[in-house]
Amino acid sequence: MFKVKVYVTLRESVLDPQGKAVTQSLNSLNYQEVTDVRIGKYMELMIEKSDRDLDEVVNEICTKLLANPVIEDYRYEVEECVAQ
Amino acid sequence: MFKVKVYVTLRESVLDPQGKAVTQSLNSLNYQEVTDVRIGKYMELMIEKSDRDLDEVVNEICTKLLANPVIEDYRYEVEECVAQ
Repeated sequence: MFKVKVYVTLRESVLDPQGKAVTQSLNSLNYQEVTDVRIGKYMELMIEKSDRDLDEVVNEICTKLLANPVIEDYRYEVEECVAQ
Repeated sequence: MFKVKVYVTLRESVLDPQGKAVTQSLNSLNYQEVTDVRIGKYMELMIEKSDRDLDEVVNEICTKLLANPVIEDYRYEVEECVAQ
């Protein structure tokens, strides 16, 4: 069993209105030191061992379902879990 | 300037219907090896140096605005950025 942590972020060149809203909220809550916020997604997938290559499976899943490769980048980390 | 990476996740005991939906989608897309998905948020904050303690500011921001401490946990990492 593997725990795969996937981080999906908007590409640098893409505007992030949600992040801008959070920045403004924080500034009006008296946190003027916050100059920029960018919002992404974080997902934890539990994946069983199979015949298929794990990296291949994760890359397919990310590009097909979890991230929009036109405007988003993704990266991931794999942890092996010991059965409990 | 600091880049603070905040990870917000649902507590273990809280149901994650969005994650369940993604698990089912992946299973029907022929990725039966995926047994569970949990969805969280990932945020990058750019914070300028100020008189206030950075950890204190980040913890306040997280509990007040970014995470709902009743159902979510958060953790964060701080990177110091060199001015460009």
